[in-house]
Amino acid sequence: MNGEIERPGGWPVVPTVGWTGSALDGAVRLLDQTLLPEREVQLEIRDLERLAEAIGALRVRGAPAIGIAGAYGVALSAARAARESAGAAAAIRVVEEDASRLASVRPTAVNLAWAVGRVARRVRDALSSGASAADAAVAALDEARAIHAEDLDMSRAMGEAGLALVPDRARIVTHCNTGGLATGGLGTALAVVFAAARAGRRPRVFADETRPLLQGARLTSWELLRAGIEATLLVDGAAAWLMASRGVDVVLVGADRIAANGDTANKIGTYGLAVAAGRHGVPFYVVAPSSTLDPACPSGREIVVEERPADEVRAFRGRAAAPREAAVWNPAFDVTPASLITGWITEAGLVRPPFGTR
Amino acid sequence: MNGEIERPGGWPVVPTVGWTGSALDGAVRLLDQTLLPEREVQLEIRDLERLAEAIGALRVRGAPAIGIAGAYGVALSAARAARESAGAAAAIRVVEEDASRLASVRPTAVNLAWAVGRVARRVRDALSSGASAADAAVAALDEARAIHAEDLDMSRAMGEAGLALVPDRARIVTHCNTGGLATGGLGTALAVVFAAARAGRRPRVFADETRPLLQGARLTSWELLRAGIEATLLVDGAAAWLMASRGVDVVLVGADRIAANGDTANKIGTYGLAVAAGRHGVPFYVVAPSSTLDPACPSGREIVVEERPADEVRAFRGRAAAPREAAVWNPAFDVTPASLITGWITEAGLVRPPFGTR
Repeated sequence: MNGEIERPGGWPVVPTVGWTGSALDGAVRLLDQTLLPEREVQLEIRDLERLAEAIGALRVRGAPAIGIAGAYGVALSAARAARESAGAAAAIRVVEEDASRLASVRPTAVNLAWAVGRVARRVRDALSSGASAADAAVAALDEARAIHAEDLDMSRAMGEAGLALVPDRARIVTHCNTGGLATGGLGTALAVVFAAARAGRRPRVFADETRPLLQGARLTSWELLRAGIEATLLVDGAAAWLMASRGVDVVLVGADRIAANGDTANKIGTYGLAVAAGRHGVPFYVVAPSSTLDPACPSGREIVVEERPADEVRAFRGRAAAPREAAVWNPAFDVTPASLITGWITEAGLVRPPFGTR
Repeated sequence: MNGEIERPGGWPVVPTVGWTGSALDGAVRLLDQTLLPEREVQLEIRDLERLAEAIGALRVRGAPAIGIAGAYGVALSAARAARESAGAAAAIRVVEEDASRLASVRPTAVNLAWAVGRVARRVRDALSSGASAADAAVAALDEARAIHAEDLDMSRAMGEAGLALVPDRARIVTHCNTGGLATGGLGTALAVVFAAARAGRRPRVFADETRPLLQGARLTSWELLRAGIEATLLVDGAAAWLMASRGVDVVLVGADRIAANGDTANKIGTYGLAVAAGRHGVPFYVVAPSSTLDPACPSGREIVVEERPADEVRAFRGRAAAPREAAVWNPAFDVTPASLITGWITEAGLVRPPFGTR
């Protein structure tokens, strides 16, 4: 696993999602995350059905990564329309139908609808202004690649912005997966870790395993090992004791949604980690693109926390851990109040609430 | 599972360990905890080899339960000596050899050495004062049964002592397994829950699953379902959010060791739970027999925390959850400072540090 990896500009980009082949005869390339960490399998997906299945089955997950996969999916659709050489109106119809089908696979993933909509608009604009279907397919792939490149740019910007928070040999606690697997290849909170490693600061990461779905164990530790970064896995319940017994320099987490006052929804377990960090005076930073800021949401009180299926807690990968009839409380997220958060890092740098309208 | 269970005096005793048959032709009965919660299998064990295997393989676990199993094991040994009708000196030798073999299976379990030593002494005393080997075997079983009964008495006393802390319909958070499976059948912190249920207070328990070994998911939820007590399982990282979003009335945990100043070592995750309880003003009680108090240990600083194998974290009930080469930090316990603990409950009632010499 620690063999040669792509490090453009010194950044250890994860091959989460991409495109292979030409605009007219290409495929969406996905690293199948359901098989990690045991096996690294790259899927080459040439039709929308299979892409919808892959997104629905969480073979790709993380809002930015899903958005990029959907964007490349619209490029697939535009290529099909070009090959079928229907007229411009028919091609627009095919592409827009495919785009809305893709968006409906994970309806709460705002990035997905945004990204497929953006590529579909580019196709319609091209065809409406007289471009051939083949040229429109090239334009679609350009647009998807632009979305992907912008995501990588944002990660690098977040990483650089967070670099000042990470001293040499810093002990960093992370929660869930906030790395290249969740995004176009570099991540949010982990982008700061990658930036620190790139700057020669030799970060030491303590990765919460993150029950129930174990994204920290399965994905974060895989990414850090792959990048050659010192990483230690621990159960979620051990993080407070790590602070008390060994010391921690900084906690870096991602975010699912940030209210105008700075209250932050993130993977369940984040709040308890913030409470422990507060007790120990450990700086606690949220790293997320500015698209995560929701100025329309005044505070954490307005954030509705999704509850997920009981079987996620009662079992892991099919292995039962509790009686089948056990009742379960399985909130997907929790909300950390702004008072426990030292700072918020976006691609624009360190920002502070209140977060105004965009 | 919620069928008829034994409730002597209204207490839902778990058939963790016991004796079946006569003193001279009987067996140690063990509920095989490695098969819970999927299957409830009672083992009938008639020879020391199998009992040593069962203790070593954690078919019975929890210091008090192991001690009782060992005590019944010495009764098995005394019965064998009586059947082999050797002389008194030979019988004493057999029983003492078997007792020290049993004690060596889990050398750090102080209760095991104490309990087998107590039964072996009773056998030696009987034979030394002229009793027959058969009478000595009866005396051995009496002594083992006394140890078992004393454990149940202590649990009932802890339960009654904690009753005042549990209002009607209280929301109670527990960690790890502190119930009848860890003891002679009633437990420590769960004995308080059982006492509250017996008093008609309809407790509502939120059981931390307790990674890495999932004693909360596998054992505590099984015990509570069996006793007909309302129980909800949650991941360890969700407990702080439970306090913030729904409210909790009291946290009840067990203890592995309590220092003279009240600092308490218990299963990893306890400290973070105590920090969260402190933030939310939730009373946090430690429930443990007075044998857990260690007046010779001045404070938590002197408690050495055992680190356990990495594979407990890298896997989840045998299913790989992390890369094989991932480094792991897996402390078995953490230490909660006395300042975060509202009170300590033993069989003698609510006690407060400093804890003097016994």
